[in-house]
Amino acid sequence: MRIDIVTLFPEMFAGPFGDSIIKRARENGILDIRFTQLRDFSEDKHRHVDDTPFGGGSGMVLKPEPMFRAVRSLTEEPPAGTRRVLLMDPAGTPFTQNKAKELSLFDQLIFICGHYEGYDARISEHLADESLSIGDYVLTGGELPAMVIVDAVARMLPGVLGSEESAPTDSFYDGLLEYPQYTRPREFEGMTVPEILFSGDHGKIRRWRREQSLRITKERRPELLEKAELSEEDREYLRRLEH
Amino acid sequence: MRIDIVTLFPEMFAGPFGDSIIKRARENGILDIRFTQLRDFSEDKHRHVDDTPFGGGSGMVLKPEPMFRAVRSLTEEPPAGTRRVLLMDPAGTPFTQNKAKELSLFDQLIFICGHYEGYDARISEHLADESLSIGDYVLTGGELPAMVIVDAVARMLPGVLGSEESAPTDSFYDGLLEYPQYTRPREFEGMTVPEILFSGDHGKIRRWRREQSLRITKERRPELLEKAELSEEDREYLRRLEH
Repeated sequence: MRIDIVTLFPEMFAGPFGDSIIKRARENGILDIRFTQLRDFSEDKHRHVDDTPFGGGSGMVLKPEPMFRAVRSLTEEPPAGTRRVLLMDPAGTPFTQNKAKELSLFDQLIFICGHYEGYDARISEHLADESLSIGDYVLTGGELPAMVIVDAVARMLPGVLGSEESAPTDSFYDGLLEYPQYTRPREFEGMTVPEILFSGDHGKIRRWRREQSLRITKERRPELLEKAELSEEDREYLRRLEH
Repeated sequence: MRIDIVTLFPEMFAGPFGDSIIKRARENGILDIRFTQLRDFSEDKHRHVDDTPFGGGSGMVLKPEPMFRAVRSLTEEPPAGTRRVLLMDPAGTPFTQNKAKELSLFDQLIFICGHYEGYDARISEHLADESLSIGDYVLTGGELPAMVIVDAVARMLPGVLGSEESAPTDSFYDGLLEYPQYTRPREFEGMTVPEILFSGDHGKIRRWRREQSLRITKERRPELLEKAELSEEDREYLRRLEH
């Protein structure tokens, strides 16, 4: 997958993209990540890319021309495959695991990151295919959101996760929160591990884990249950929890 | 504010914490960010910090002892003020702007970051004060979530944002998505700026922006309206949108 990141701060990405699974995916040729410095597309001799907002107000707004030029420099060649231009924007669609799966099917993703300021609205309306938000909080720029989305999407690409990192039981893959995990020691400062995990009965353990996922999700994030895939046995367990 | 990050990958933070407002806040003494290498608290000669899950299954689980020792090395001195131990966990409470505000009032925040694997559940139950999730997606580790939370919290600390970066009109500060912003040029490739922004009537502009926030929030994230602070005039505008 080709990933392009349009940003004023490409050096922010060195740590997060230089470690762990992203590093390995780049070395293996699964991910080709490139950076485009927005400031290189300013036509201003001071290399400005922002200006004050029309209608007044504090803060600065990213101008449309440098951003259109920067993104067009990446899209002027016909795409090698499918391509999507993503704007990192707190007013965008919430990014979820399903969206990660959907984006993992594209051949090229272009990330537009603002910093400090807002964007001129013509960028979101006419340049980006989609605006995405990673959560309901305010960040300094789009760089951290782009790192988060790249990480979540990369995990869905074939060959990125080694066998030791397996994905399918992680939270959200099946729409539920993950069940509690335990490892050695069996007792630590009086804190013990549930007995059932030593029963050797894999069917029972699977069922116990499923019920823990259901119980934790119901306690902490009941709204997730509405969209989760539930069996009749799951529904029966949730009904029993009510009493 | 003192921030401690317990992680296997401290070098991941260099870029995101070496730029922009976080860098300046560290230089100004507003933020004192320190890293604790989890591996230094292994008692194993191979410096292992994880082990296979009890009850079977793929993936590795972070062991309790090194994490308890690492966090206790930070909490053994009585705190200089209020302190909170935060576990980065996709099954945790959703992190929001209100939580950022709440956390910004503590004197010390300790972030526990896992990587690849799950945590032994005794860590979330007995060591952390709170488990937080930045969104409904799966990431490789807790490092990116810690960066996101530090960024959002730092913005709420007095003296961190300069006048050019003003926070109060950003999305979520008042529970609504941000209105569209525009800057020069007034026309760009046939795309124009709404006329009202040139009216010079600040009351009208304020009202128009508020209505855009309400409209966009209603279109994209109607659930946010339930918790937003709305005036009678706002409610009247929303009723008119229905027709």
